Amino acid sequence: MKIAMIQDKLIDAKDLAPAYLDRGTYFGDGVYEVIRSYNGKLFGFDEHMQRLKRSLAEIKIGGVDVEDIRGRVLRAFDAAGMADAKIYFHITRGSAPRDHSWDDGGLEPNFFLTVSEVPDATEQKENGVAVSTYPDLRWKRCDIKSLNLLPNVLARQDAATKGCYEAILIDENGLITEGAASTVFGIFGDTIQTTPLSANILGSITRIFALRAADDVGLLVLEKAMTAKQAKLADELFIAATTKDIVGVFEFDGRKIGDGKVGKFTRQIDEQFRSFTV
Amino acid sequence: MKIAMIQDKLIDAKDLAPAYLDRGTYFGDGVYEVIRSYNGKLFGFDEHMQRLKRSLAEIKIGGVDVEDIRGRVLRAFDAAGMADAKIYFHITRGSAPRDHSWDDGGLEPNFFLTVSEVPDATEQKENGVAVSTYPDLRWKRCDIKSLNLLPNVLARQDAATKGCYEAILIDENGLITEGAASTVFGIFGDTIQTTPLSANILGSITRIFALRAADDVGLLVLEKAMTAKQAKLADELFIAATTKDIVGVFEFDGRKIGDGKVGKFTRQIDEQFRSFTV
Repeated sequence: MKIAMIQDKLIDAKDLAPAYLDRGTYFGDGVYEVIRSYNGKLFGFDEHMQRLKRSLAEIKIGGVDVEDIRGRVLRAFDAAGMADAKIYFHITRGSAPRDHSWDDGGLEPNFFLTVSEVPDATEQKENGVAVSTYPDLRWKRCDIKSLNLLPNVLARQDAATKGCYEAILIDENGLITEGAASTVFGIFGDTIQTTPLSANILGSITRIFALRAADDVGLLVLEKAMTAKQAKLADELFIAATTKDIVGVFEFDGRKIGDGKVGKFTRQIDEQFRSFTV
Repeated sequence: MKIAMIQDKLIDAKDLAPAYLDRGTYFGDGVYEVIRSYNGKLFGFDEHMQRLKRSLAEIKIGGVDVEDIRGRVLRAFDAAGMADAKIYFHITRGSAPRDHSWDDGGLEPNFFLTVSEVPDATEQKENGVAVSTYPDLRWKRCDIKSLNLLPNVLARQDAATKGCYEAILIDENGLITEGAASTVFGIFGDTIQTTPLSANILGSITRIFALRAADDVGLLVLEKAMTAKQAKLADELFIAATTKDIVGVFEFDGRKIGDGKVGKFTRQIDEQFRSFTV
């Protein structure tokens, strides 16, 4: 490489900061995690680190000491001194001149982390949110928490332009896979239903605890994908994600869910979930 | 955001370089082009800029003056002073704290470009290359030249570990879509066959000129996807990509193609293609 250009400025290639040669940017060649704390305590930390380890292995990023990453997360969390923190971090395969294939051993993975306040979701949790559907355009390994998130971005933006909080992704068979950045749950009578784990959805950490909470409050768990039509007829509907845990859905593609308020079981599950976080 | 960490170093969030907040890295939220020159002359420049414009529109990146981008590319090309240059550039939606949806008007797109020597492909063009198949794991909008390239990376690496030059992607119906970073062509008698354009493959610029060259040398063009089995039985097989134009395939998943040498028509197409570049 001889010359580079950043915005409209020419620069000698040898003066380029490694951040500009990150395979994370060239290819989305990396994986990430989002972890939150409740009142000074990280939630599901082990589960997140386990998933990280799996994601790294699935895309063959080697040379990462997960114990060391654990230490970095804790150090940053301590330094931020926030009770309710949202910790985002990603690990990419490293920085090198652009080439699809990589040189095993020739790359040093890049780590990047931010700590910020957990966005306030009081209003959403109290009143529920509206959601809209969008085609699931994602790749065939959504079980890997990778940086290839353009379809999620397009789905979320579509929801935002419709005044909705989340996009619910629908696969080519008309089935709900998951939200653009959440898991979807429907309650029908005494049964809670959600899409089973597969290569088509992320193994959500919040999903584990939401199902545990649902079981605790006496619901039967059915892991089976719903159609959009079925979801619209649910007694209750909610989405779950790390930073907002349980959020009720009051409207699905313009149709009111139940009585249009956050449902009874949703509130019970939310309460039970919160008990796990203390 | 309060605190960030780069590798193992804590940093105040306000001291973060914008490159670290690039939506290109967070989400692969950007598009790119690769353009080459032959002997001091950019090839297919208009076509590449037209495709760029389309990619930007498809993912709704606004605020990019394509004429201005054109000027940047020319300026960098001039500054590099290379006869056979490979120009890579991407445009991302901009830098901002991580959030899937974006604020229209609130983001300034990021531009990044590199100029490097065209990798020498003399040996590959002379003797042909071996290729291997890999499942097409990509998203459903491969017609957009986006930065979501992890499946391509994994495919290419798989090929590399098998001693192959390119991975040929096979969809769930057993059909060839395209190479991880190339278009695939088969020659059967007096017919040249390649996958038709759709949302499942990139509208390759080299494909346009390769088909024009094939027509010029008297072949009939059939735009129909091949199975891997059909491809193995082709009289000739070649791949085409911007930086190497036409490269013959002598082996496909371990099976010799034709007589195991670069075929007669492939050489004619290559020659005709080169005549377009002067």
